[in-house]
Amino acid sequence: MSLIVKKFGGSSVANKERIFNVAQIIVDDYRKGNDVITVVSAQGDTTDDLIEKAKEINDGNISKREMDVLLTAGEQISAALLAMAIEKLGCPVISLLGWQAGFNTDSNHGIARIKNINTERIKTEVSKKNIVIVAGFQGINKYEDITTLGRGGSDTSAVAIAAAMHANRCQIYTDVDGVYTADPRKVKGAKKMKEITYDEMLELATLGAQVLNNRSVEMAKKYNVELEVLSSLERIEGTIVRETTKMEKMLIRGVTCDKDVATISVIGLKDLPGVAFKLFNKLAQYKINVDMILQSVGRDGTKDITFTVSRGNADTAIESIESLKSVFQYSKITKDATVSKLSIVGAGMESHPGVAAKMFEALYDADVNIKMIDTSEIKISVLIDENLSEKATQAVHDAFMA
Amino acid sequence: MSLIVKKFGGSSVANKERIFNVAQIIVDDYRKGNDVITVVSAQGDTTDDLIEKAKEINDGNISKREMDVLLTAGEQISAALLAMAIEKLGCPVISLLGWQAGFNTDSNHGIARIKNINTERIKTEVSKKNIVIVAGFQGINKYEDITTLGRGGSDTSAVAIAAAMHANRCQIYTDVDGVYTADPRKVKGAKKMKEITYDEMLELATLGAQVLNNRSVEMAKKYNVELEVLSSLERIEGTIVRETTKMEKMLIRGVTCDKDVATISVIGLKDLPGVAFKLFNKLAQYKINVDMILQSVGRDGTKDITFTVSRGNADTAIESIESLKSVFQYSKITKDATVSKLSIVGAGMESHPGVAAKMFEALYDADVNIKMIDTSEIKISVLIDENLSEKATQAVHDAFMA
Repeated sequence: MSLIVKKFGGSSVANKERIFNVAQIIVDDYRKGNDVITVVSAQGDTTDDLIEKAKEINDGNISKREMDVLLTAGEQISAALLAMAIEKLGCPVISLLGWQAGFNTDSNHGIARIKNINTERIKTEVSKKNIVIVAGFQGINKYEDITTLGRGGSDTSAVAIAAAMHANRCQIYTDVDGVYTADPRKVKGAKKMKEITYDEMLELATLGAQVLNNRSVEMAKKYNVELEVLSSLERIEGTIVRETTKMEKMLIRGVTCDKDVATISVIGLKDLPGVAFKLFNKLAQYKINVDMILQSVGRDGTKDITFTVSRGNADTAIESIESLKSVFQYSKITKDATVSKLSIVGAGMESHPGVAAKMFEALYDADVNIKMIDTSEIKISVLIDENLSEKATQAVHDAFMA
Repeated sequence: MSLIVKKFGGSSVANKERIFNVAQIIVDDYRKGNDVITVVSAQGDTTDDLIEKAKEINDGNISKREMDVLLTAGEQISAALLAMAIEKLGCPVISLLGWQAGFNTDSNHGIARIKNINTERIKTEVSKKNIVIVAGFQGINKYEDITTLGRGGSDTSAVAIAAAMHANRCQIYTDVDGVYTADPRKVKGAKKMKEITYDEMLELATLGAQVLNNRSVEMAKKYNVELEVLSSLERIEGTIVRETTKMEKMLIRGVTCDKDVATISVIGLKDLPGVAFKLFNKLAQYKINVDMILQSVGRDGTKDITFTVSRGNADTAIESIESLKSVFQYSKITKDATVSKLSIVGAGMESHPGVAAKMFEALYDADVNIKMIDTSEIKISVLIDENLSEKATQAVHDAFMA
């Protein structure tokens, strides 16, 4: 007998049929003798609809506290409906909201961090042999005000419960059936992985693999919670995310390509002390995440700084720098939103030199020019022409996976 | 400076414009220096929509506990939106759900009774000069499970807070601007009353005046909470409901006519001991409310029993009696759903004989035949032909009010 924590996203419970599909998955595991705790997100577009209602009322600065009160109604509804479906299938069940399930968070409304989970109530319900449905994404702060955990918060809720309850496994159900070596819709020969490490998963998530929320993977790593990414529509094994010394470290785990990238180049920047610091400090004030950075010495004692941001932030980035024009001089700023970032990830590359060379060779053979390079211990990213994304991804995937 | 408790129903917050209308009413009273606590219902049809969703999942016996989790999301949404609107108008505000506002109830999900209100949190917020918005209709039981107070529960929430906080007044905003001596859409000369007693209000509510929920009036009477019924759309004085010895007791307060009435007649019932008891006991088992009862001696040592029920219960009532055919004999059962119940209410009639005679005379003059009569200390009801409802109501109203 195991204790399993499951998490289903909004699309998995979007309508009556989907809710019963989820209910059946839960009931099947319960009837095998397992204890099952399930975290559920708001149905389909509920959260977006509620945000829309709020914006109708106040399109300016809405109180984040009240926004949290509003949005958490979404998971409340889906949790109750899922419980009703399980009841209809004949199993004992109880739904718990964030505060009932003991989710204590800090007071950062909208992006709260879980401080601890008081598992008393959940334990009581599990010991009564109830299937427990927990409204994801939500908690309360020390003032007993409702908080939310931010984007992907239900993943975090699930991992946190799995950690606190020492669950045997935390299953994250999505609309894909696991983590692949590349996007199977785009890359021929992309294979589903049986296993992957937390660090690899983190790099893949950051790189746009869109499977698991980063915070939840970080938390799973910290508390050593074994994750499984699997499909809510097909009953097949997914991909396990865990730390393992036994499994041979694969050289390359996955190849991803992220098109939400733009480069900003500040050309002919006067080379004064602290100029780069001031530049990126300004961007940080505007809450703009900078990814890759390239600095090169230009002509006449000036330098050029090129960096990447998400496309939605590109214009704001330019404006924020232009507002500093009086502080330091540069000749011009340019933007390029026709690039993409191709990355390979693998914990094995740490101990295998030559991985970068192999990647660059594959790109050279495919006539793909590299504009920028960025590396970490388990990742190599290159910036390429957006139009070559598919061809380049396939070439690199072929080079390592074939 | 006063402490005012206000309550707005679902239609008063059905859309953005209505929400801002309500927010403005609250803000105006707050800016006059009052402390304002506002109880709000779910928006428009939200509750019915949620019930529909639940029935899609399980059209049989849905867990009442989970139904309460589901439905309370409705007030959660409207409370947050109203708070956002008040914020937009520039006043400090905080929304509280039932459990946050300290509503402790028993465990009868769907029809819970308030046991007490822990006012600590509300008092703290009021002392901080926050406008407090409370999600109506909801509370928690001793297990920290969410409960609901049943139909009209938000009225009860408002009166309970007003009682617990010793508010100066509890204002119930509706889509009518007060309590009238008769339905102003149907009776010429119907006048809005400035004041009415709790008992009169109770009789009028029971008789179909549809203004205030009975439980809330009973609670207001018990804790001596001064109520005001007023319009959320027009800024005019409404009707005050309170106990007063000063005001001269009006002979007649109001005339109402309820068409949701059917008579059931059991004819030729064998006159055995306990036969009436068994009959009405059976109806009680089916949860059928019986209103007026007439028993008459028939021919041949048998008797006839005629009683009234709501039209929706008439067929069930007949079936439940027919299931007892083997226990006691009767010759036939008949149903008449073409009747209505005309009533006059007034605390003054206790000490004024001749009120009934005056009513009957008015009906006689209008050629309206009386089928049954029922009286209480402050009420006289007669059963008449449904087609004569308007004419009879006008005649009685003219007799007493002209």
